[in-house]
Amino acid sequence: MALALSLGRRGLGRTWPNPAVGCVIVKDGRILGRGWTQPGGRPHAETQALTQAGDAADGADVYVTLEPCAHHGKTPPCAQALIDANVGAVHVATLDPDPRVNGQGCEMLRAAGIPVSMGLLEAEALAANAGFFARTQRERPFVTLKLASSFDGRIATATGESQWITGPAARRQVHMARARHDAVMIGGGTARHDDPSLTVRGLGIDWQPARVVVSRRLDIPLMGALARSAKDVPVVICHGGDGDAVLLRTWQDLGAILLPCALKGAQLDPLDVLQQLAKHGLTRVFCEGGSALAASLIEADLVDELVGFTAGVAIGAEGLPAIGALGLGQLGDAPRFELDACRAIGADIMHVWRRQSI
Amino acid sequence: MALALSLGRRGLGRTWPNPAVGCVIVKDGRILGRGWTQPGGRPHAETQALTQAGDAADGADVYVTLEPCAHHGKTPPCAQALIDANVGAVHVATLDPDPRVNGQGCEMLRAAGIPVSMGLLEAEALAANAGFFARTQRERPFVTLKLASSFDGRIATATGESQWITGPAARRQVHMARARHDAVMIGGGTARHDDPSLTVRGLGIDWQPARVVVSRRLDIPLMGALARSAKDVPVVICHGGDGDAVLLRTWQDLGAILLPCALKGAQLDPLDVLQQLAKHGLTRVFCEGGSALAASLIEADLVDELVGFTAGVAIGAEGLPAIGALGLGQLGDAPRFELDACRAIGADIMHVWRRQSI
Repeated sequence: MALALSLGRRGLGRTWPNPAVGCVIVKDGRILGRGWTQPGGRPHAETQALTQAGDAADGADVYVTLEPCAHHGKTPPCAQALIDANVGAVHVATLDPDPRVNGQGCEMLRAAGIPVSMGLLEAEALAANAGFFARTQRERPFVTLKLASSFDGRIATATGESQWITGPAARRQVHMARARHDAVMIGGGTARHDDPSLTVRGLGIDWQPARVVVSRRLDIPLMGALARSAKDVPVVICHGGDGDAVLLRTWQDLGAILLPCALKGAQLDPLDVLQQLAKHGLTRVFCEGGSALAASLIEADLVDELVGFTAGVAIGAEGLPAIGALGLGQLGDAPRFELDACRAIGADIMHVWRRQSI
Repeated sequence: MALALSLGRRGLGRTWPNPAVGCVIVKDGRILGRGWTQPGGRPHAETQALTQAGDAADGADVYVTLEPCAHHGKTPPCAQALIDANVGAVHVATLDPDPRVNGQGCEMLRAAGIPVSMGLLEAEALAANAGFFARTQRERPFVTLKLASSFDGRIATATGESQWITGPAARRQVHMARARHDAVMIGGGTARHDDPSLTVRGLGIDWQPARVVVSRRLDIPLMGALARSAKDVPVVICHGGDGDAVLLRTWQDLGAILLPCALKGAQLDPLDVLQQLAKHGLTRVFCEGGSALAASLIEADLVDELVGFTAGVAIGAEGLPAIGALGLGQLGDAPRFELDACRAIGADIMHVWRRQSI
């Protein structure tokens, strides 16, 4: 199952809106087939592994990180494929919460006389497909918030200089994280100020996550890196619905996907933004700031994972803070995260924290 | 020598103005004597180890982390004691830069026909006695700056609430660090706002570092924790020399040690503050903020070691920044530190950085 989980992870960032599943078929201690959800979400992991195993799958043990599907979608149900292959037993890490599956995959297998065991490495499987579960059960993507800051929590100098606070190893790590997410998300201010392309570079990876900009008024540079590349790599703009019609039209012509979102006061409601992104199919979103968007997500308790890169540099109180105003009354009300890991990355450190109540 | 270094470290925080030396005497693969500088700076490590070894020191190998002294101070020279014991050879990690020693200890030994080897684990010995070397060679103490902050670099909420951002394990680590320094240092604002006692607590340790407050106008609570305990554990106040005479007299009566320091503009000159502390005998100072003192030390490039404790909590931009204004022009001018270590401490992380040009 550990191997199946590791195979499944290969699909992260490329299978949305589908989960990134892994499957291993074993008989007499030999691996006969390995599969993982292919880019775009199909073929499914089980189909891949069964194809590899061929007739040898007869009587074999199948390890799969998510319950095999039971419904006819764009592919026939995997549970049926496993029955047709006459496998000996199926070991499922966790149930598929999709209402069209949700236990029915296991039911189909058992009805066909195939023993099904549940729960092997379930916690790991839940974590690996946290995006799929967030979208299915909480109707929003899993949100990772990344902040690369100075020792004193600044993401830029007073004049906005931010390149580079952290070193090349940390930036490479950020590109790897982008590639494991369905989309990279920033606020309008960051898009205006840094004009980033938000693509994955320098890793020999041939797919790109979508780029999401959260900007009520769509005031994003029309000649910027995102505008220029919107036809090659998707640009999704979450806007206020009250935006200028000419701007909306211009972005549409540039190839951007426009998602009108609800307002909360004068700003976009971060929960509705995420719900619209989930409706669009995104399951894992990697937010790279800036401080206003970071603050609005944290304030609304919508950050599932917090990834900090801290450099050994001091910028001082005039610098731009990593997280904007939160309007905290007391320290006891401050949102807390649980430490998951910390380690040195080149000259910097990386620390990963998780929402306490996932 | 590694054992000698580890023995030497036992004295850190208790031997000032003397170095914390360790000494091991070995013959035929057996340890005959172990010694380290005793509280107050004497007896010296060599004397301790020789006493333990007794007559068996004859012909033995002596490992000592710092060159044995050659001068008659409050104790007779250790080089002479080693000669009298007729040891076989002396291995010295590094020279003692004190002008009264500085090679003369080794010279005395060699003149007496005892072979001396130099430089074994020298880098480690230099680091272990960084305070002693800083005071002897740079005429100021070694400065460790500790900052315990939220994920976003805040040391308190907008209302000044700072208890507790980090957890009990991190605070325990801070008490351990205090005990390894000669003095704990804070700015006047922190003394006024937090009224800390700055003592080492909860570790079963029976000595206390001195407490240093940097306050130009001595406006420190006269009924506060420091004032109340100044007769038990030294309180050193670095002030502007232009302080109110009644206040000066009051603090003197309370038992505080008053060090007038030079001004630089309207503030105390941080370099002169450290030079006065070195003249007072302090070799290792542990600065715990606040943000103004931290900024003035960093701006003047006087921080040798930076220790960060980061909690998984977000406070937001209204919170009190860890480091005050630095007046940076460009990111390239920002002071940089080199990563030494990072690890989880309870629910928080600890990261240690060193000055790049020590």
